[in-house]
Amino acid sequence: MHKRVAIIGCGNWGATVANLIANGLDESVFGDEILMYTHETMVEYKNKKRKLSELINHEHVNPKYLPGIEVNKRIRAVVDFTDLTHISIMIVCLPHQYLNALKNIDFIRNGINKDELMVINLSKGLVTDESGLPITPSEYISRLLGVNVSTLQGANIANEIADGCYAETLIGYHKEEEREIYAWLFGKRHFRVSFVKYNPTIEMFGALKNVISLAMGIIDGMAYKSKIKIKVSSNTKAMIFRKGLVEIMEIAKLMKYDNVKRLVFESCGVADLFVSCLAGRNYKCGQLVTDYSGSNILNELESNFNGQKIQGLGTVEHIHDYLKHLNKINEFELVKMVYEVFHVTGNVEPVYKYLEK
Amino acid sequence: MHKRVAIIGCGNWGATVANLIANGLDESVFGDEILMYTHETMVEYKNKKRKLSELINHEHVNPKYLPGIEVNKRIRAVVDFTDLTHISIMIVCLPHQYLNALKNIDFIRNGINKDELMVINLSKGLVTDESGLPITPSEYISRLLGVNVSTLQGANIANEIADGCYAETLIGYHKEEEREIYAWLFGKRHFRVSFVKYNPTIEMFGALKNVISLAMGIIDGMAYKSKIKIKVSSNTKAMIFRKGLVEIMEIAKLMKYDNVKRLVFESCGVADLFVSCLAGRNYKCGQLVTDYSGSNILNELESNFNGQKIQGLGTVEHIHDYLKHLNKINEFELVKMVYEVFHVTGNVEPVYKYLEK
Repeated sequence: MHKRVAIIGCGNWGATVANLIANGLDESVFGDEILMYTHETMVEYKNKKRKLSELINHEHVNPKYLPGIEVNKRIRAVVDFTDLTHISIMIVCLPHQYLNALKNIDFIRNGINKDELMVINLSKGLVTDESGLPITPSEYISRLLGVNVSTLQGANIANEIADGCYAETLIGYHKEEEREIYAWLFGKRHFRVSFVKYNPTIEMFGALKNVISLAMGIIDGMAYKSKIKIKVSSNTKAMIFRKGLVEIMEIAKLMKYDNVKRLVFESCGVADLFVSCLAGRNYKCGQLVTDYSGSNILNELESNFNGQKIQGLGTVEHIHDYLKHLNKINEFELVKMVYEVFHVTGNVEPVYKYLEK
Repeated sequence: MHKRVAIIGCGNWGATVANLIANGLDESVFGDEILMYTHETMVEYKNKKRKLSELINHEHVNPKYLPGIEVNKRIRAVVDFTDLTHISIMIVCLPHQYLNALKNIDFIRNGINKDELMVINLSKGLVTDESGLPITPSEYISRLLGVNVSTLQGANIANEIADGCYAETLIGYHKEEEREIYAWLFGKRHFRVSFVKYNPTIEMFGALKNVISLAMGIIDGMAYKSKIKIKVSSNTKAMIFRKGLVEIMEIAKLMKYDNVKRLVFESCGVADLFVSCLAGRNYKCGQLVTDYSGSNILNELESNFNGQKIQGLGTVEHIHDYLKHLNKINEFELVKMVYEVFHVTGNVEPVYKYLEK
């Protein structure tokens, strides 16, 4: 019996990981196809509007989320949760806003043995539980499905992995047998995988770093604007990086996540923050805000990203409210600054306050 | 009685700090001049060869080490240690190779009260003591002069500070009164200074990060060479950054430096490594090596830097020998790779070995 793999999500990162797994897949273990749950949408391709699932299955392209990259023929797009039958390994890679869709998977009807199902989360972000507290995607999925959820998090800009550039990542796993299977699935010559026992701290870093990434984008954007008089440089960026890292760790500790001081040295920690301070959507969004101002800024910014979500914009709101509730927001200067730029003033004026004090 | 300040060194960083201090100097405390010990050399200026000390004192420029920046008129270059009379605060900023010149200061003849003298080191690098063990510049100066030596270390690319860009730094101090005086001297609106009790770990980071900076330069240099087939990206850089940080901390622990896990989150730690992975001489030297090959590589590389030293080239040799002596070199893949590129093969071939294993 093969360990059938399903990827839930067809976005930039999900599509990249599907390809990574499908290239060189050991068919004797995993079978000859990988299912990819695809949120159906019409996409323009060669001057025609076509269904995304059809483009993936027949043209082997994903022009919406992974333009220019050939989709491996082993990947089969399905558009309905009822088609995710007899799967053994579920890789979740949905924007965290849509994770609650997973409740529609009907394990019994789909022939999925819940006791043997392995679930690993690749989403980044924070979700709010019933009491309004921020929790990580894997905690959320675990509660929703009633299964243990592992997590893969690291310094992984999707397009660069899709392009075959060297990278590393970290998996937090539950059982030894999972470790072995995930090493097989994800580990490639260009993609080094490290393992630690599962801990939600791993994911907390991935959510919070997007806030610092926005801050870095703003600072860097301001460096290239002649109308702006503030002088920023590599030193300034290093200051933001360090301050951001310290704020992330302090927030994780406030939230009672453990092992913060050890996991921060893994790919999910300093490395993911590093890459997010050089590239990625949140960083770009931070740069763009220096061009905009006004009350409609969030919509204007998101319109630049082809339907992809800017995770940091929601995360900073969650975190700001949480810290304010604890009466601690003033201790987190960067979180406060980013929140004010995007959610209060709609311009970069709070950056001056931050730097000049 | 004024607290007279002397800067020992006229290089890029020394000249920058001299200006930083001289701009807005509180003359009621520190008097109206700052001495700058200058290694005399002939410099071409407006098509004439002139003495560097004359250019500093009469033209208020330092075209050799700080071109394009006006030298504050309060700075007086002196070329002989006997001219460093009645000083209260000595700021050492010599390349570590030349620190032993300090033994020529004759305290009694110069009217310096050794018991009241404050010494702070700004040099980065490692020095070898009599038994061949690497020690930090401040430890070395402390032994040489028989005084306590504080240290200032941070993510501080000199030219960017000279240009007034925002930055932060860390001072490791001995006595409370020193803390106050250093805050006065160094702290500026654009230059935030933090303080911790002195610990040589602060300097150890500044020495070791140059090795990682060389590695990052090599990797980044290879990204832009079409003849080289290895694909590197932001993810790859993040991997090198993280691995480098871990190696630095492990080396510091092997050397029995303490407080490593706390001080790494200060400007001297992650921030200095961050900036050194984006810019600076060692990074540039790493990039350049991808263009060269052959046995004469070190001389060829240093010829690009206008007489300025590439600290990482010597540091990696010290560290490599130290780790080899402990039979631990194979645990430090990045140190080993950088050592092999510069000191063994003279080309980037070891990078492939490192990435592909």
